[in-house]
Amino acid sequence: MTDINIPGFRFAGVSCGLKPQTAAYGGRALDLALVVSDAPCAAAGVFTQNRFPAAPVLYDRQALQANPAAMRAVVINAGNANACTGQQGLADAARMAALAEAELGLPAGSALVMSTGVIGLPLPMDKVEAGVSEAALLARSETGQSGEGRKLAAQAIMTTDTKPKLAARRAGPAKLLGLAKGAAMIHPNMATMLAVIVTDAAVEPAALHAMLRRAADRSFNAISVDGDTSTNDTVLVLANGLAGPVNAADFGAALVEVCTDLAQQIVRDAEGASKFITVQVSGAASEAAARQVAQTIATSVLVKTAVYGADPNWGRVLAAAGRSGVDLDPARTALWFAGDGGAEYQVVTAGAPLAYDEAEAARIFTCRDLLIHLDLGAGAAGATVWTSDLTHDYVSLNAHYRT
Amino acid sequence: MTDINIPGFRFAGVSCGLKPQTAAYGGRALDLALVVSDAPCAAAGVFTQNRFPAAPVLYDRQALQANPAAMRAVVINAGNANACTGQQGLADAARMAALAEAELGLPAGSALVMSTGVIGLPLPMDKVEAGVSEAALLARSETGQSGEGRKLAAQAIMTTDTKPKLAARRAGPAKLLGLAKGAAMIHPNMATMLAVIVTDAAVEPAALHAMLRRAADRSFNAISVDGDTSTNDTVLVLANGLAGPVNAADFGAALVEVCTDLAQQIVRDAEGASKFITVQVSGAASEAAARQVAQTIATSVLVKTAVYGADPNWGRVLAAAGRSGVDLDPARTALWFAGDGGAEYQVVTAGAPLAYDEAEAARIFTCRDLLIHLDLGAGAAGATVWTSDLTHDYVSLNAHYRT
Repeated sequence: MTDINIPGFRFAGVSCGLKPQTAAYGGRALDLALVVSDAPCAAAGVFTQNRFPAAPVLYDRQALQANPAAMRAVVINAGNANACTGQQGLADAARMAALAEAELGLPAGSALVMSTGVIGLPLPMDKVEAGVSEAALLARSETGQSGEGRKLAAQAIMTTDTKPKLAARRAGPAKLLGLAKGAAMIHPNMATMLAVIVTDAAVEPAALHAMLRRAADRSFNAISVDGDTSTNDTVLVLANGLAGPVNAADFGAALVEVCTDLAQQIVRDAEGASKFITVQVSGAASEAAARQVAQTIATSVLVKTAVYGADPNWGRVLAAAGRSGVDLDPARTALWFAGDGGAEYQVVTAGAPLAYDEAEAARIFTCRDLLIHLDLGAGAAGATVWTSDLTHDYVSLNAHYRT
Repeated sequence: MTDINIPGFRFAGVSCGLKPQTAAYGGRALDLALVVSDAPCAAAGVFTQNRFPAAPVLYDRQALQANPAAMRAVVINAGNANACTGQQGLADAARMAALAEAELGLPAGSALVMSTGVIGLPLPMDKVEAGVSEAALLARSETGQSGEGRKLAAQAIMTTDTKPKLAARRAGPAKLLGLAKGAAMIHPNMATMLAVIVTDAAVEPAALHAMLRRAADRSFNAISVDGDTSTNDTVLVLANGLAGPVNAADFGAALVEVCTDLAQQIVRDAEGASKFITVQVSGAASEAAARQVAQTIATSVLVKTAVYGADPNWGRVLAAAGRSGVDLDPARTALWFAGDGGAEYQVVTAGAPLAYDEAEAARIFTCRDLLIHLDLGAGAAGATVWTSDLTHDYVSLNAHYRT
């Protein structure tokens, strides 16, 4: 389920000139989005762990602390990250929120902000002002409550994404809808990744935050495209309560599913990627150890280039696991590959290769969906991380991003 | 100084069919090298921290422990890493050492072994046996004591290296000569990197090990090409004592210089690299913090692709520093770029960009030698790491290494 109407929420996406009008943005220049709630919302957010947090991250952290139970809107721009912009950036983030509140007739402190795009340039506030004004009109129109409004909003937050990303789920009487952007600088804690999830469930802010934290750890923090973390990563959730109380376990599970769906869409749309890689580590002494090994494999450029080249180079997988910092006994490790959902094919046992069929392993590596499954033989814990391959196109895109 | 005769040492490099006869090896098929000492040597080694250490690493650790004061030879093969080869691999490593000892008439346990190349294939011992035999003859010939012998040995240990790597220094009455190979999987602790350093200084094994450890930390462990660590990395030093005792400080400094020279040669020869990048972090609270920030910048694929694309994307440098795990205050950071030894050009102060000249920054980024200097404003400690850019050629080389 990729789209669904959530009663009481309106969406808009407009163009205000923040993105260059180039093919890099797919010819689309939508660059300012609004998410508006008719009713006050419980709200929660999780943010980048980067020590250079962008101005919108700093703004939202304070705003959520001051007003976690009566949020009304999120205003998002693409094309400019408002990061590394000093005091002016903080003032611009606050002004962006205030503009949305004024245009929508909302109380002060009830709008959150998100920005994504180029780092280090001041936000052109005249353009933002015009964009917020136009987006507020659109959100209040019939389009604002339609699938078209939701699609325009999802498009307006894209940067190098090639497609908008939406995911929806039901949890008892309530519904959840999430939109996200992200196609590079994707790495745990977190990604150049923005997501907003809205729901009509009634959930207290503290519980909402705890569930969002857990969902983000199992989704957005389990994907990695290039090992870099952005200054702007933010996931927000707004719950307007119109559907009434929900079973916490059901709602938590649905939230994990929406976040995982969005996270996987981000990896599948990864810059220049040709393959989707699932790295599964089992038999670990702890989930933390499993995650550390999985993430080291998932960020190894040697593993990622081997996948791109359809080379079943299992030695690079073991070598990456071996430098992960987790204590391993090579003699207890086993490795399997699988392609496009097919059966797992074992290539390593006790840390050394089986007499496997190289042609079959190579065939698996030509699949668009690749599973790399490493068992450590040290316990019962496991973790899964999703990533993409490292391609010529990735290098091309990132060598000349700004120019 | 790249070459020098060290009295009492002989070298050889021969072809025994371990490398495929392809252009990937520059048309050269030398693949087995010998370093032989006429006198017993104090010896020390530092080894990969990878949890999947290759058989030669396991063999050498034991051999050095058993016999640190009377080593006589090192036998090295390229084309096959003898890694992830289980019990057979351990037996093959021991046999390789025994073959060298037999051919050279040396005591048992006086030869060390090193292997580099493809992981997971058994070492073809018939080829190794023929190679050791031929290399022993060559080492004993006049060529063995000549510059030609040293050059052949340096060539025989190459894999994807495009040139042999030698470095020499003097320390009082003594001389040091090092040879190394490495062009990928280069990352601290350590690299797909092999090095042997020979000297006629008289140094006790324990002191030799301590000095090698320190020299490796400041050289081989301060370079990074792709963030991966190999299963085989080894640096050995053999001291035959013919020149008598040396001043420890002078010798230690010369050892650091030889190692740094070799390490920088490795980065300059990095697979597919078009630029040499020095990442200097100053103003850190501790050397460990400085090193952690420098290494995070040096391994950021976004920084490395930006350098390749000659894009002075300072935001990626700050973002990498911000996710390094080191506590930073953005408002105290400053960033400079310099090219080809020119003056440093400041682009960031207090975590935000100066009104710098974008054309000048872009010009610096076209230089073959690039300095990225980040000051954290938090203390007096610093660290320097050397790396290379991430290019289309790197992806091409690593997508199809085995095939």
